[in-house]
Amino acid sequence: MTTEPRLFVEASLHAGASFALVPAQAHYLGTVLRRGAGDRVLLFNGRDGEWHARLTELRRERATVAVDAVLRPQAEEETDVWLAFALLKRDATDLVVQKATELGATALLPVLTARTNAGRVNEARLAAIAIEATEQSERLTVPRIHPPQPLATLLDAWPADRRLFAALERVPDAAPLRPFHGKAGLLIGPEGGFAPVELDALRNHPLVTVVTLGPRILRAETACLAGLTLLQAPGSG
Amino acid sequence: MTTEPRLFVEASLHAGASFALVPAQAHYLGTVLRRGAGDRVLLFNGRDGEWHARLTELRRERATVAVDAVLRPQAEEETDVWLAFALLKRDATDLVVQKATELGATALLPVLTARTNAGRVNEARLAAIAIEATEQSERLTVPRIHPPQPLATLLDAWPADRRLFAALERVPDAAPLRPFHGKAGLLIGPEGGFAPVELDALRNHPLVTVVTLGPRILRAETACLAGLTLLQAPGSG
Repeated sequence: MTTEPRLFVEASLHAGASFALVPAQAHYLGTVLRRGAGDRVLLFNGRDGEWHARLTELRRERATVAVDAVLRPQAEEETDVWLAFALLKRDATDLVVQKATELGATALLPVLTARTNAGRVNEARLAAIAIEATEQSERLTVPRIHPPQPLATLLDAWPADRRLFAALERVPDAAPLRPFHGKAGLLIGPEGGFAPVELDALRNHPLVTVVTLGPRILRAETACLAGLTLLQAPGSG
Repeated sequence: MTTEPRLFVEASLHAGASFALVPAQAHYLGTVLRRGAGDRVLLFNGRDGEWHARLTELRRERATVAVDAVLRPQAEEETDVWLAFALLKRDATDLVVQKATELGATALLPVLTARTNAGRVNEARLAAIAIEATEQSERLTVPRIHPPQPLATLLDAWPADRRLFAALERVPDAAPLRPFHGKAGLLIGPEGGFAPVELDALRNHPLVTVVTLGPRILRAETACLAGLTLLQAPGSG
């Protein structure tokens, strides 16, 4: 188990680089973790892999680091799964962002549907949740969080090289979601399900595959997590 | 999508049965859902399957039902997976109970380990969470919630006809958790991992298989949900 704090930074990472951390990180290292100058940390920025570094200065709101050697190159990064989900209430959205980050989602796309009640997100708070979950889960990249968009916009702009698995409930002809290890997306609808016109749009979209997550009725946030787990399970794909 | 409220009851269910619901259910039906006498509900008790029923009386704290016809026999019930998990803080434990119920766990066994900080649970509150999640997820049985027990006790008393998959992190020789459709259990450790003596006990137990949930470090509650999903995934087993 690592005891080195793992921090997301914006700066470029290479041997010999030196820069200041943001004040909140200085506070976390000094006041919460009781670290001091000379202690080691791990840094990543989503571009240059993960690096060993040392704290060269740590006072109240000011911490500087010196970057030593690379631990993991960026190329080791994970699968490529986007999660599109009908926007939920605040607590459930927070949970989805945190857990989907742990489970490897590379982009999070909140979607507005006919039966979606929520309409806005606090993008700064969601980004902070994603960064914290990325640090904790030892991922190398922070998932990109998109602003909410209507389902029709999402489907119109869906990239041609990426499959989209739409999870439906109470649909007899839907196949079970199976592992898929290429570029993929998972779409989870609202608690009330998709409206008929939305179901038609999904069924007629050339990149969409309609799937089921199993025999039970899952809450939307549970469906997000179960679907991400199934898509990335070991096995065929 | 069903619009009939789905309620857990203690009474026996058979055609022609008639009995009173508990006051909280009467309140829920009348005040929250605005239902009245003559409206339909679905009832299950974990033993007799799921039944159509009618409200024969509904006033404030008093509701009576008449049971009509069976909708799903009990025999349709699901896989048989127990979830044993190192006891978490209250909010995380609540989340695990709710989501594990949705995901089909048939028993929930909180475990005390060397690195477990929590020690007590409010069994009545956890049972209420499990019942509510069972109603919502359209399951036929409520998972049984056991009192917390030491890991050694769990392992000593583990039934001989049930496999136990212990999910470990940072263990190079652990195989990925794959679907298993017999009697199974999943064991999730505490945030700090199992102590060396606990790892030895797991590795030496004849019914335990050491597995990994994937390349990322998951929070304990996320590991519970991902593991339950993987164990019950379609495919080999």
